[in-house]
Amino acid sequence: MLNKEFGTLLNQIRERKPLIHHITNYVTVNDCANITLGIGASPVMADAIDEAADITAISSALVLNMGTLNERTIPSMIAAGKSANAKGIPVVLDPVGAGASKFRNNTAERLMTEVKLSVLRGNISEIRFMVGLGAETRGVDASERDLADTSSAGEVTKSLAQRLRCIVVVSGAVDIVSDGNKTMYIENGHPMLGNLTGTGCMCSSLIGAFCGASKDKLFEATAAAMLCMGVAGELAYKKSGQLGGGSFHVALHDAVSRMDAATLERWGNYHEA
Amino acid sequence: MLNKEFGTLLNQIRERKPLIHHITNYVTVNDCANITLGIGASPVMADAIDEAADITAISSALVLNMGTLNERTIPSMIAAGKSANAKGIPVVLDPVGAGASKFRNNTAERLMTEVKLSVLRGNISEIRFMVGLGAETRGVDASERDLADTSSAGEVTKSLAQRLRCIVVVSGAVDIVSDGNKTMYIENGHPMLGNLTGTGCMCSSLIGAFCGASKDKLFEATAAAMLCMGVAGELAYKKSGQLGGGSFHVALHDAVSRMDAATLERWGNYHEA
Amino acid sequence: MLNKEFGTLLNQIRERKPLIHHITNYVTVNDCANITLGIGASPVMADAIDEAADITAISSALVLNMGTLNERTIPSMIAAGKSANAKGIPVVLDPVGAGASKFRNNTAERLMTEVKLSVLRGNISEIRFMVGLGAETRGVDASERDLADTSSAGEVTKSLAQRLRCIVVVSGAVDIVSDGNKTMYIENGHPMLGNLTGTGCMCSSLIGAFCGASKDKLFEATAAAMLCMGVAGELAYKKSGQLGGGSFHVALHDAVSRMDAATLERWGNYHEA
Repeated sequence: MLNKEFGTLLNQIRERKPLIHHITNYVTVNDCANITLGIGASPVMADAIDEAADITAISSALVLNMGTLNERTIPSMIAAGKSANAKGIPVVLDPVGAGASKFRNNTAERLMTEVKLSVLRGNISEIRFMVGLGAETRGVDASERDLADTSSAGEVTKSLAQRLRCIVVVSGAVDIVSDGNKTMYIENGHPMLGNLTGTGCMCSSLIGAFCGASKDKLFEATAAAMLCMGVAGELAYKKSGQLGGGSFHVALHDAVSRMDAATLERWGNYHEA
Repeated sequence: MLNKEFGTLLNQIRERKPLIHHITNYVTVNDCANITLGIGASPVMADAIDEAADITAISSALVLNMGTLNERTIPSMIAAGKSANAKGIPVVLDPVGAGASKFRNNTAERLMTEVKLSVLRGNISEIRFMVGLGAETRGVDASERDLADTSSAGEVTKSLAQRLRCIVVVSGAVDIVSDGNKTMYIENGHPMLGNLTGTGCMCSSLIGAFCGASKDKLFEATAAAMLCMGVAGELAYKKSGQLGGGSFHVALHDAVSRMDAATLERWGNYHEA
Repeated sequence: MLNKEFGTLLNQIRERKPLIHHITNYVTVNDCANITLGIGASPVMADAIDEAADITAISSALVLNMGTLNERTIPSMIAAGKSANAKGIPVVLDPVGAGASKFRNNTAERLMTEVKLSVLRGNISEIRFMVGLGAETRGVDASERDLADTSSAGEVTKSLAQRLRCIVVVSGAVDIVSDGNKTMYIENGHPMLGNLTGTGCMCSSLIGAFCGASKDKLFEATAAAMLCMGVAGELAYKKSGQLGGGSFHVALHDAVSRMDAATLERWGNYHEA
């Protein structure tokens, strides 16, 4: 994949302003809305069963996030997912906390079964759970044990992508993006991203924005979204990281809203395998 | 309306610290609470049917916001609205996304019918829907087509105000405030407000705060709230807009919390027609 | 209590990274998650009845916050509380708005009765309600009358701690922490904390983090959490308070995320009685 493709995909968002329907958690939803606006797309959050499918039908992508899932919103996620599938709208699933409770495990499996996913993005523990390897998800964070076992992460990602026939992303110190055929390793990012709530959720929103603007290039769009977050994290750290978590949070939104093709090309650090 | 009236209305909030009951969405609720505190009022967010009417009854204004409405909160909105009507407490309705789904359309109409509104505030697509003109609400944003048709916005606002016998506000590049008789055009603001989620919701919170402190001057109070947000947006842009969306967000809260009569008088840019 | 104990308790959080389960409101939940991460713990927010008890069982502390309680989340709070009690996991209750509606009053009493609390933290109006003194809770803020009656606050706190056999905290210009035997008065903090939504909720999250890391020293851990917030408020004001509420908010998160033992020791201002 050529470096300048990423910039082209970013510019597509700003030209097309895709509407990105989120059914997401109430912890990080404000950050998700603002990062979606920052990258140039338009967010809409609507989780009532009475409108979920209708809102999806007028959107360019659907982001399903299990962060604070409950019995009311699961049917809405299913209905929205089916609506997206019927219209050929990309669906991004963020299985927050999969592996941490039976309820989350069952819901993640149900969403995988009943909805055809375009992209599945999680941390290594969540993705290990999804692939049936057994995981030690610690609340909503990856466990130390799962983080230590990096050697197999690329293979896990690729094999899950093949089985689900969708793009799989494992977020971490190195982000891995695979469609089961191509696999990309992105080395951008900064450890402070792990000390801010919602950076995973925001990645999923960015994936929704990139995929919503470029439906015919989902692998490249997904990689561009992860690259964008990684580069923004680095720029935010350089600008304000020393000041603390609050300033880093602000600088991250600044960096995404000011991201452009030249910045992505200059700072992108990735390889394919 | 004299310029210094705006400052007087602002000072009333800080003297009286009105309690503003919100039944609002979970996307921008934190910003609504902080903007309410910033302007000098006191926010309370309570949406359970078991207490909605009780909390309204001890409040000075009620703000109903449809952003993430669902079957659980609609009855709470109705109950709170009726409680406000019974006590003569101003009710502000923000019909977020009216025009975007049948569920939102029906709910907006039901709220208009069952609750006597004091102020209705939305973007041009939402207000066009409310007035029965047909709208192309795009998720929660105004559509390009509706934005382009600016010539009639003043008439639409005025006629809806007459029909509903309440104050109607259309937010946009120029904010329009009408009570069906007087109409005010406010030219403050900055385009970056449109790239931050919740600036409309925050306007509705400010309207609640101004109206809650000055129940006998609802038109002036509503205009003052819109002017306040517009001026704050300009000041925020001047201070931090170049840095990006995160810094602008912070600067907006700074500007509202530091707003005073002199600043409103100096920067206010409006005319009546 | 020696000054350096506070630093030791802080360091325990960063070594042990306790998982802190919150069932909390949607207004300030993002701040609660980020302050929990900032102090070095790991937040998980999960309120569905289908998993509340399970998530508590893998956590180190449980924080119950009544801010936007509703009929769906109350059974989850009870189930999570019982799960914590069964496992010896500390439970922190933040009875937001107790005194403001019958629904909140009944829920606060039910939680006190059905769950064995480790720490109860509120403002003076909320705590007066809990102690049966009659309160004038104003929405979610303490009333002027209750704030003015400072002479008895220490006694009220101590007697409630004795009756409930838990630690009671009254937040205010002076924070009071009592276990019914020892009582500590903490004079750190800044009035701007009262103009930012969620500073009380964030205190409760910090208490959860400190108690989760040091289950054998709940009184000291609770005092350390309150001291930490007070000192952070002072540092945030010095750095950015003049700029306004938005900058103060950011600086508060910065100060908590950069807090260390030496800073706590240097700025802590408290006495026991």
